Amino acid sequence: MFDEAITAQRCQWAPWQSKLCSAEQAAALIKDGMTVGMSGFTRAGEAKAVPMALAEMAKTNPLSITLMTGASLGNDLDRLLTEANVLARRMPFQVDSTLRKAINDGKVMFIDQHLSETVEQLRNHQLPKVDVAVIEACAITEGGGIVPTTSLGNSASFAMDADKVIIELNLAAPLALQGLHDVYFPEMRPERTPVPVVAPNSRIGGTEIAIDPSKIAAIVVSNIPDSPSTVLPPDEETQSIADHLIKFFTYEVESGHLTPSLLPLQAGIGTMANAVMSGFAHGPFKNLTMYSEVLQDCTFDLLDAGVMDFASGCSITLSEERGKTVWNNLDKYRDRLILRPQEISNLPEVVRRLGIIAVNTALEADIYGNVNSTHVCGTRMMNGVGGSGDFARNAHMSIFVTKSVAKNGDISSFVPFVSHVDHNEHDVDILVSEHGLADLRGLAPRERAQVIINNCVDPSYRPALQAYFDEACERGGHTPHCLEKALSWHHAVNVEGSMRSFIKEQELAEAEA
Amino acid sequence: MFDEAITAQRCQWAPWQSKLCSAEQAAALIKDGMTVGMSGFTRAGEAKAVPMALAEMAKTNPLSITLMTGASLGNDLDRLLTEANVLARRMPFQVDSTLRKAINDGKVMFIDQHLSETVEQLRNHQLPKVDVAVIEACAITEGGGIVPTTSLGNSASFAMDADKVIIELNLAAPLALQGLHDVYFPEMRPERTPVPVVAPNSRIGGTEIAIDPSKIAAIVVSNIPDSPSTVLPPDEETQSIADHLIKFFTYEVESGHLTPSLLPLQAGIGTMANAVMSGFAHGPFKNLTMYSEVLQDCTFDLLDAGVMDFASGCSITLSEERGKTVWNNLDKYRDRLILRPQEISNLPEVVRRLGIIAVNTALEADIYGNVNSTHVCGTRMMNGVGGSGDFARNAHMSIFVTKSVAKNGDISSFVPFVSHVDHNEHDVDILVSEHGLADLRGLAPRERAQVIINNCVDPSYRPALQAYFDEACERGGHTPHCLEKALSWHHAVNVEGSMRSFIKEQELAEAEA
Repeated sequence: MFDEAITAQRCQWAPWQSKLCSAEQAAALIKDGMTVGMSGFTRAGEAKAVPMALAEMAKTNPLSITLMTGASLGNDLDRLLTEANVLARRMPFQVDSTLRKAINDGKVMFIDQHLSETVEQLRNHQLPKVDVAVIEACAITEGGGIVPTTSLGNSASFAMDADKVIIELNLAAPLALQGLHDVYFPEMRPERTPVPVVAPNSRIGGTEIAIDPSKIAAIVVSNIPDSPSTVLPPDEETQSIADHLIKFFTYEVESGHLTPSLLPLQAGIGTMANAVMSGFAHGPFKNLTMYSEVLQDCTFDLLDAGVMDFASGCSITLSEERGKTVWNNLDKYRDRLILRPQEISNLPEVVRRLGIIAVNTALEADIYGNVNSTHVCGTRMMNGVGGSGDFARNAHMSIFVTKSVAKNGDISSFVPFVSHVDHNEHDVDILVSEHGLADLRGLAPRERAQVIINNCVDPSYRPALQAYFDEACERGGHTPHCLEKALSWHHAVNVEGSMRSFIKEQELAEAEA
Repeated sequence: MFDEAITAQRCQWAPWQSKLCSAEQAAALIKDGMTVGMSGFTRAGEAKAVPMALAEMAKTNPLSITLMTGASLGNDLDRLLTEANVLARRMPFQVDSTLRKAINDGKVMFIDQHLSETVEQLRNHQLPKVDVAVIEACAITEGGGIVPTTSLGNSASFAMDADKVIIELNLAAPLALQGLHDVYFPEMRPERTPVPVVAPNSRIGGTEIAIDPSKIAAIVVSNIPDSPSTVLPPDEETQSIADHLIKFFTYEVESGHLTPSLLPLQAGIGTMANAVMSGFAHGPFKNLTMYSEVLQDCTFDLLDAGVMDFASGCSITLSEERGKTVWNNLDKYRDRLILRPQEISNLPEVVRRLGIIAVNTALEADIYGNVNSTHVCGTRMMNGVGGSGDFARNAHMSIFVTKSVAKNGDISSFVPFVSHVDHNEHDVDILVSEHGLADLRGLAPRERAQVIINNCVDPSYRPALQAYFDEACERGGHTPHCLEKALSWHHAVNVEGSMRSFIKEQELAEAEA
């Protein structure tokens, strides 16, 4: 199988060989109806061999489980498990197109959660107990402690809560990851004390998941790398959004509202976030820090550029190219990185204390600044709310970014009334599209609407949204609406595949007037 | 004017007489365009004489201001100020019908905020600076410190932020209030440390608002009592809601999920909250605590009954009857009460740490458990989101209660799609109507819908909502909807004043089938 010497080097726990087994043998520990907690957050550090074996096994021995993870999985695991009909219930996040379809067809019950809350609910027995935890490790310590790999996510709490723990020792994961993690559990209520993170670099816990080793039911050796991230270079609109934000922050620094080190940065995953963060390499910024979920390519770019001093996250997800320069040089970053449980990386307590500047992506926003992050036309789940709610509600400044249109202009990302609300107007300080930035702080809804229409909406849709807003204002209300038309833009997408009819209607109305 | 000896007894600050002036003189310090921060939270402890004089003054010398308070004001102040056209902008909460109309007419710009956030934004210069603070006091200490009255609210931060402070010394407020307050300010970022509240009875600050006395611009003596609360005895439906909840908590205790002391309780203001809280006097509950905003009649009933050990709030609002037994007997409760700034009573950090059980009132909820707390038919503001978001997002258990119908059954409080979202499904664990309780924890949207329809919806509207849900499920989606009908129930209210046509439509459809 695998070189025993290499494996032994990573296993300091004496009885490790007695627990060694194949992925198939380990997967067989998972029974129909069980709740399984697996490592993995944004395609980083997920258990790989065991879920692959489980999907294979289910083809001949059907079973269905509740699967909890940190966030999304790589290596097509959610697809494989969905195709094998293994998933009865899935939480708290996913990004797989096959699983997405099953969720939207009502075949998999998906529990979409704020990512800081899953293990809190588990700890307080508000979710079913974890029967089996499957945790990827880069090493096992002398006392049977698990050293996680590229994500910490919910792994520590899953392992603590589980009856049985399967460790997937991944030889492809750099051993140099050891020491980066900071494993901390909030105390049980009512005796809980403050979580003592006071800065992105606060180290408050241990470097391993210290479980009762008698729970180690199997050790599976694997050698499968994480899936690389699929971040693309910014297109023109994405670059414009980044430029607007960098201009805004430059002004905030120059006018003394923020210092050149700003406040700790959080950014959602993806191309947009990468473009925005990369922008901080230029301008009056220095000694930046990050207190976020995922550490992406841009994080390491900023560390390399000497603009960023420290980055705290709960996972590292890199492109193939960037991975080559990071994974073999972890020592270079060792003093400037920390990986936390997602409960701590996203904890409202810490987000509010540190005063995070949060940058997240909106699927759509309405004229009053309510944001939909999850549901296409109010019904079809994309990925999940993720950590955006943990950050947006408690941030010093909550920023949402989106391109003004989608599908070549068939769909306006700014609508009269969002078809699903993940973040309401109270939690949205700033909205940015490629056309401009709307600073909504301290504004009433009617004021917010005018700023959003003027600054963010695509010019082609602006007259139609202005007309909606004007008509609504005539009818009155704190948040004026024409309810019979409020969701008609989405209905048009469902029926005609486009919102363009509202542009034409408005042009006709103006021509007649 | 007022007996000088009595006034002197409350003024330990030596130069107090030099600042003594009439309410009219003090009001004249407030100029057109200013931002004014006044004490007052849920009709408790608001400055009274100065805003009354301001309203009077504005009749001859028009001026308009931004008014910030803790929350709602008593003594009809918001009505008087609105009628005098004094209010250009108002935040963060109100309950006055005259002001409400002005807000909904677009005449007053109302900034509806999570009540923990106003002074955080002020501290970080995200809201305009306070020019003048007007704070009600029951005493002034030797160093010029302000001892607040029946609410602490945002008073301390307003006084710290303001250029000038007007103190309204209210001789009608018991001097025995001195010592109840716990004035604490979170440190400035990025140096902020944890807020060290670890239990409802944690005392972390001082008992007075210690301002620079050179800022004291005026001292006005008044003798005007707080408006009493208007809590009514529970009607049949309210009592049923309370009974369902008490039954639920009794089960939670008996099954070992919670101890007989539960976790600290938070309850919104009003008859519903009073009825629910009063229910805890019966059952297996003991050593209860409260960590809430407003302490109402029921709080003192539970303290008197020996069922509750301690209550922390940011204001005390009592009925006339209950006031008689509390205000003259404050010493009896002294060791079991604390009044905090609303920033601390509602702080996400503390709410999550303590694991609050939060009970708040919904205006309406949809079949997926999204809650509207504020907007009638999506447009017309009622009061504001208040502290419900601070608690619901971070609570151990977030409960929303509502009667199943309003306006004699013309309106169903459960609808296909809420017309405004204050609390989305992630933040709503349990919904209760007089018909029953829906425990939504760990459920996917399609599961949530069926439990809500079965347990909470009024039987008259149940078939129509079930039909909507069934049709939506056939179309598919994680959160199925028929967008063209989603807001039709509200539109019917706007047009016909009732949702009853959906009952009839459904009856016809079933008769035909």
